[in-house]
Amino acid sequence: MPTSWLTALDWFGIAIFAVTGALVASRKRMDIFGFMLLGAATGIGGGSLRDVMLGQLPVFWVKEPASLVICLVVSAATFFLAHIPESRYRALLWLDAAGLALFCVVGADKALEAGTGGFIAVAMGVMSATFGGVIRDILGGESPLVLRKEIYVTAALAGAGAYVGLIGLGVSNAAATGTGFALCFTIRALALHYHWS
Amino acid sequence: MPTSWLTALDWFGIAIFAVTGALVASRKRMDIFGFMLLGAATGIGGGSLRDVMLGQLPVFWVKEPASLVICLVVSAATFFLAHIPESRYRALLWLDAAGLALFCVVGADKALEAGTGGFIAVAMGVMSATFGGVIRDILGGESPLVLRKEIYVTAALAGAGAYVGLIGLGVSNAAATGTGFALCFTIRALALHYHWS
Amino acid sequence: MPTSWLTALDWFGIAIFAVTGALVASRKRMDIFGFMLLGAATGIGGGSLRDVMLGQLPVFWVKEPASLVICLVVSAATFFLAHIPESRYRALLWLDAAGLALFCVVGADKALEAGTGGFIAVAMGVMSATFGGVIRDILGGESPLVLRKEIYVTAALAGAGAYVGLIGLGVSNAAATGTGFALCFTIRALALHYHWS
Repeated sequence: MPTSWLTALDWFGIAIFAVTGALVASRKRMDIFGFMLLGAATGIGGGSLRDVMLGQLPVFWVKEPASLVICLVVSAATFFLAHIPESRYRALLWLDAAGLALFCVVGADKALEAGTGGFIAVAMGVMSATFGGVIRDILGGESPLVLRKEIYVTAALAGAGAYVGLIGLGVSNAAATGTGFALCFTIRALALHYHWS
Repeated sequence: MPTSWLTALDWFGIAIFAVTGALVASRKRMDIFGFMLLGAATGIGGGSLRDVMLGQLPVFWVKEPASLVICLVVSAATFFLAHIPESRYRALLWLDAAGLALFCVVGADKALEAGTGGFIAVAMGVMSATFGGVIRDILGGESPLVLRKEIYVTAALAGAGAYVGLIGLGVSNAAATGTGFALCFTIRALALHYHWS
Repeated sequence: MPTSWLTALDWFGIAIFAVTGALVASRKRMDIFGFMLLGAATGIGGGSLRDVMLGQLPVFWVKEPASLVICLVVSAATFFLAHIPESRYRALLWLDAAGLALFCVVGADKALEAGTGGFIAVAMGVMSATFGGVIRDILGGESPLVLRKEIYVTAALAGAGAYVGLIGLGVSNAAATGTGFALCFTIRALALHYHWS
């Protein structure tokens, strides 16, 4: 399995979620270290929960601090750049959708690598993808995105399910990853655009 | 120790808590996968926290996915059946009381099995019984039940304490389980009925 | 390393955070077991999260129940003594500052003992120091202190950073601990007093 490829996607998802955490810190007018705390908790929260449930300890960012560095750098950058309040919440929603689509695939893949069956791998994909945002919204004192009327969990489930199903059918990892990502992101994007519920 | 007997009680508690999670999803008008997420988080949340604190990893539902399947089936069934809004919150309170009574015993038993002393076993019983509901209420954006004026933690403590005390006195597991469950449920039921605080 | 010395500071921090949890229970007019639950969750929450992330399981209070006993005793004492509502929130803020200063040092030290590098040790110090309070505020239905405008994360970061930096420079543990504590507490105290943001 092309680990470097999935690692790149993982880090990209972590960075995107960290930006969404930093945007919530921005809405709350926190200082730069508040941005970093909320960005890091969002970026590494879902994956940490996944590692704990699987018993893969210490968690990934203790083993490989680069992922935490990414969160801190990206959150600090957001602090200096997030000056346009009116577009902030839309940006958060779309970045969250991209992070969701990346993490539902990466989370499922990490579970398969840890030796779980397909059912648990799908559950881990959905959990990794949704709980970073849940942690962000709870820490930030916002109503969790997962409670909004637009389709959310469904998109993560479709992406993780497609990925695990295609891997089970012997499809290449790249094709399964691409399909899982595209399916989750498309469903969530359509839901956001048309206010599906 | 009759493991199959305690496993049955455990699964029953998981199913009951999953229904309470699904009822919160219903109050929030979430879709079926939202029901499943909130039902699963509530059903397996307290036990997962217990397993993590004890270092029994991966957590039980990764080892034995049947418990997660139960949560998902029960939550989906609740989605199709929970049509009577006015009775929903009362149902939630009573089911939560039953789950509390089952989990305070099961949680304490799991801790004893993991080799802890009686004091930590009581603490694990209280934690398993209360934190599934805490996770449900926080994810659902509701004020935690544990904060309500009616006696709540006290009931879990009485149930877990009675179970561990009776096991320590050499009483049979079935009698200790029955006593712990009955004590916790009775205290909570009286508190709900008479609005004890 | 003088373990008994750091253990004493750890227990002192745990006791102080437990009081802050009990004060939130007091604001919510909970019963004595509610005080104990919230006190214990606050006192041992940050350290439990640290142990889980590091993979040091079971968590410290399962290995050494004395720390949980401290939380319960201190919370019960607060129940009988916390009668002066108007001073409660100020007391909470100042005790939280002391706990923050103790835990940013103890958390960083525990991570170094577990073999992490300095960067992760600083992160663990900040996480241990801030998440006990986050758990308290979320369980208690209060807006997290970490979101308030006054400098908060910054103080924990300064304290943990000073401790790890001085240890890295070969300074004695006592001097590094004293400096880290004093730096964090002073920054937070000035922020509270002058309403720095």
